Amino acid sequence: MEVKLAKNYGFCFGVKRAIELAEKKPNGITLGPLIHNDKEINRLKEKFNVVVNENIQEIPKKAEVIIRTHGIPKQDLQKLKEKTNNITDATCPYVTKPQKICEDMSAKGYQIVIFGDMKHPEVKGVMSYCDNEPLVVEDLESLKKAKLRDKVALVSQTTKNINLFLEIANYLISRCSECRVFNTICNATFDNQDSARNLAKEVDVMVIVGGKNSSNTKQLYNISKEYCKDCYLIEDFSELDSKWFLEKQLCGVTAGASTPNWIIDKVVNTIKSY
Amino acid sequence: MEVKLAKNYGFCFGVKRAIELAEKKPNGITLGPLIHNDKEINRLKEKFNVVVNENIQEIPKKAEVIIRTHGIPKQDLQKLKEKTNNITDATCPYVTKPQKICEDMSAKGYQIVIFGDMKHPEVKGVMSYCDNEPLVVEDLESLKKAKLRDKVALVSQTTKNINLFLEIANYLISRCSECRVFNTICNATFDNQDSARNLAKEVDVMVIVGGKNSSNTKQLYNISKEYCKDCYLIEDFSELDSKWFLEKQLCGVTAGASTPNWIIDKVVNTIKSY
Repeated sequence: MEVKLAKNYGFCFGVKRAIELAEKKPNGITLGPLIHNDKEINRLKEKFNVVVNENIQEIPKKAEVIIRTHGIPKQDLQKLKEKTNNITDATCPYVTKPQKICEDMSAKGYQIVIFGDMKHPEVKGVMSYCDNEPLVVEDLESLKKAKLRDKVALVSQTTKNINLFLEIANYLISRCSECRVFNTICNATFDNQDSARNLAKEVDVMVIVGGKNSSNTKQLYNISKEYCKDCYLIEDFSELDSKWFLEKQLCGVTAGASTPNWIIDKVVNTIKSY
Repeated sequence: MEVKLAKNYGFCFGVKRAIELAEKKPNGITLGPLIHNDKEINRLKEKFNVVVNENIQEIPKKAEVIIRTHGIPKQDLQKLKEKTNNITDATCPYVTKPQKICEDMSAKGYQIVIFGDMKHPEVKGVMSYCDNEPLVVEDLESLKKAKLRDKVALVSQTTKNINLFLEIANYLISRCSECRVFNTICNATFDNQDSARNLAKEVDVMVIVGGKNSSNTKQLYNISKEYCKDCYLIEDFSELDSKWFLEKQLCGVTAGASTPNWIIDKVVNTIKSY
């Protein structure tokens, strides 16, 4: 089976940076998974004894703690600081940006609108930096139910789709006298998405490698699905099924921003072997 | 001929206010036409001896001067103040708003983008309040040629179309890290536009009354034309042609924001007489 990789795929700058930071802190504890990729989390545990703990209560005093790429709520950071000084902040700088914007804009009296998934750790973190209660919307419909103030500031979860973000912005611009729009969508996501779209147009089957709870991986899947009928989202090579490739000529492969190369390589080699 | 008036039409708040101010200043001089309507300008001249002068050099010292609804450039205001203390500011408050925004935002280092017609007196006035040179764009195409900075502030000429404004905003949001969007489009324009659209859908012929150099009147014409094949833009009843109404059942009438009721009444009565 012939395989073609997307022009841009896999690890983004923030994830690479977080892994490098974690590798330098053997025996460290990450508060929640460092990135959305179980295999890489396991590798860090096996090779560097970097372990995950979701519960601040359980973090020992003076422990070596690493903050995950998605960031953590301001209150959690405060609690953590009361326990230990050994904190390594692996929050992606692209996530720190909307956190700071929300802190600044809410202090200036703007109503904060966050385009994102309220249950996502990144959004939970960003929300915590608002002085007043932010409006978190997953789509235009939920925004339509909300009561808007005259001056709003809009940020986005870094992995969201720009066109949906613009829909939200347009609704706000039409109704508010001032709308401060901060485009906090990450370029890496854009680049991976554009590459997935282009690849999906020319292949017979697409394989998207990434965590099934990873927002940006799901988007790569959805975009690919628009242009290629047969798309499969897998976490690693073991989920591959040779039947998917029967009577196909060319298979496209892309991967979410949290997927390490060693996982992608195994997938590519397995498909090539069919 | 049966006539139906648009739900909202004619004079807006700013124009009504300017005329009331001018009527209280008999023998006053307006720097350029007070509003975009020659007939009303003539009425003010005949009834109140309020005259128009485009040239600041010619304004006598200590003259009673009235500033037009569209505002004037900051530099002209300064020159005027050196000549006289008797200045009545009839600038529409909705125009003063983008002037202040441009002054404030350019002082804060934002690149100013003005969606509007560079030759329109309102836009000339707004432009003059920018510390740094603003980008004035009439459409998305002209924006595409421009060099953008990272932080931009966007305002609109008050009479522009919201959808075109959103196109401009979307382009900026996708490319800049912060885009401060000030929706300075006037509601009166919206209301008159919505009413024209609704009326155009149900009539056989539409007559739009207003100055031929009035931006908002031209927009009413363009919107009506989308829904009604036979549309006519006239300045007053004398331009009406009975042939337009042959074999038509219902005529819709609307009017630009600078058109006084006495002009509209004559138009309506003439059409009814056919």
